[in-house]
Amino acid sequence: MPASAEERFIAENFERLSAGLPGAFGLKDDCAELVPAPGQSFIVKTDPIVEGVHFLPDDDPADIAYKALAVNVSDLAAKAARPFAYLLAISLPVPPETPWMARFTTGLADAQDQFGLTLAGGDTDRVNGPASIGVTVFGECPVGRMVPRAGAAPGDRVYVTGRLGGAALGLALRLETGGSTGWPVPPAARDAALARYLRPEPRIGLRAALRAYARAAMDISDGLVKDLDRMCRLAEAGSAGAIIQFEDLPLFDGLAEVLATDKSAAMQLMTAGDDYEILAAIPPENAAAFEALAVKGGTPVTRIGEVTREAGVTVLDAAGRPIEFATRGFDHFERGS
Amino acid sequence: MPASAEERFIAENFERLSAGLPGAFGLKDDCAELVPAPGQSFIVKTDPIVEGVHFLPDDDPADIAYKALAVNVSDLAAKAARPFAYLLAISLPVPPETPWMARFTTGLADAQDQFGLTLAGGDTDRVNGPASIGVTVFGECPVGRMVPRAGAAPGDRVYVTGRLGGAALGLALRLETGGSTGWPVPPAARDAALARYLRPEPRIGLRAALRAYARAAMDISDGLVKDLDRMCRLAEAGSAGAIIQFEDLPLFDGLAEVLATDKSAAMQLMTAGDDYEILAAIPPENAAAFEALAVKGGTPVTRIGEVTREAGVTVLDAAGRPIEFATRGFDHFERGS
Repeated sequence: MPASAEERFIAENFERLSAGLPGAFGLKDDCAELVPAPGQSFIVKTDPIVEGVHFLPDDDPADIAYKALAVNVSDLAAKAARPFAYLLAISLPVPPETPWMARFTTGLADAQDQFGLTLAGGDTDRVNGPASIGVTVFGECPVGRMVPRAGAAPGDRVYVTGRLGGAALGLALRLETGGSTGWPVPPAARDAALARYLRPEPRIGLRAALRAYARAAMDISDGLVKDLDRMCRLAEAGSAGAIIQFEDLPLFDGLAEVLATDKSAAMQLMTAGDDYEILAAIPPENAAAFEALAVKGGTPVTRIGEVTREAGVTVLDAAGRPIEFATRGFDHFERGS
Repeated sequence: MPASAEERFIAENFERLSAGLPGAFGLKDDCAELVPAPGQSFIVKTDPIVEGVHFLPDDDPADIAYKALAVNVSDLAAKAARPFAYLLAISLPVPPETPWMARFTTGLADAQDQFGLTLAGGDTDRVNGPASIGVTVFGECPVGRMVPRAGAAPGDRVYVTGRLGGAALGLALRLETGGSTGWPVPPAARDAALARYLRPEPRIGLRAALRAYARAAMDISDGLVKDLDRMCRLAEAGSAGAIIQFEDLPLFDGLAEVLATDKSAAMQLMTAGDDYEILAAIPPENAAAFEALAVKGGTPVTRIGEVTREAGVTVLDAAGRPIEFATRGFDHFERGS
């Protein structure tokens, strides 16, 4: 009997992506064998992306693939783990055409090069529904040294990497609500925001700074306020909160222009999901050293506020007044959402 | 801000399933930390199950959950790995009702107890399509001692665990084609086959026998002939095949009755997918010891044939004539299938 269609599909499209990882067995076994280096643990995460939720049907397959890896690697980055390998489960409504697969695997290869990980195995299925790309990532970290979500302490400085609002702006422009709202986003900023939505930038360069100085960290996937609140509710001494200065939030390209014309929209974009920047709680005595090591690793960081004893995240405007938000970020299981 | 609906959903339904695994952080972190015992590697696998493909919408949620774990643990069993932990990604079209979730997590708890593994983390999503349950399993195995799919040698005895055809018979009866074909399946056998389709039995008891004596092994998920051919095409000295005696195949309850009235249907059921029994290639000199250790581990095994130098799997009838099959097992990416 000749090789099945499924075996040919794997050999032609994916086998080369497993090169260099002996435990992947050229994707010809049922399982992969992964061994952390001595003294290291595996930090693991699974986060599928689904058509219509995390990407759009007419996105470039290379971008879909890249994003599927990037959103998972972002979690490893926030935990100060070094990306190592991944498993891939793709469910597609129809067998993909060759050009689509070529673009898809190009995106995987780009992401592998960028993040330093290798395909270890996976699964392919046909489904009567939207496409979904399920990635499970494995990162390495010295045993017991993962940077946790829990453990922030009142007085810790709150830092965020990069700039906020790019992904939400990109999605809004992509859906052409940008045109209808008349935001005066310059063309270069428009392109940057569209690119940010399609290809998040996991902050793997922050590893050393996080491992050395962070009390707690997580990536922003569901929105700044919502995710910071999650982190603070797991603070060291029971629940805590945070006070954030809106004026201190680093704006993605184009957000300043939106802010000038539609403040409410800008604030929503700044606190929407999909940014994949990292939030970190740094003890005050280590703040300067954290900043220096972050910059050395090539990652811009901005201090945006402070952890408080009082529960809840409050965002203050320039006059020190709390800002009310219409929405509080993305919640997959909110009934009626 | 109170805990989000997603956090409450996780805390209420899943947190208790992570008890006893410190690296799961009570499901309150973005990632889990997993460390194999000294000298052990992780054997990993991801295999989602999808509504309409692997289970039916009106299946008991406890059975859906159990099957999602069982099909993945089956791969670990075939590799002689000890189940350790798993990640769970569930995508549902609507937020599940409380009684549905209670049944679902009961099924997970049953499977955890049965197979000896713990929930380490996961993800929940809403999708505009069929439900899917994505499981990634982690098993432990001494480094370099995973039983591979590749490496069978001509002359090796081919063994199969348990009995064949139960899952396919169960599905056929479930879809009520059984009634229309008039198969005289006794009520007890009917119940057993229905149960087998819903709850596969991963052969974790075969671990010691496989590790000691198997040259190659894999589980049967896409059908006996197809999966055996896959194993033989990865034989030690390039491609090989196998000769199987149909009379030697162990029949699931009710298959003898189907065979007596509809031989063609019986042969299709015997070689259809979803059995999750294990195929193993055992060097002839170790066959007796393998059988003894398998029985000691509580797993019935049957010798069904032999690996050959000639490519292709041939199934012979009692008169030594090759049997032709209408179908050759399940292929997710066969165009037009």
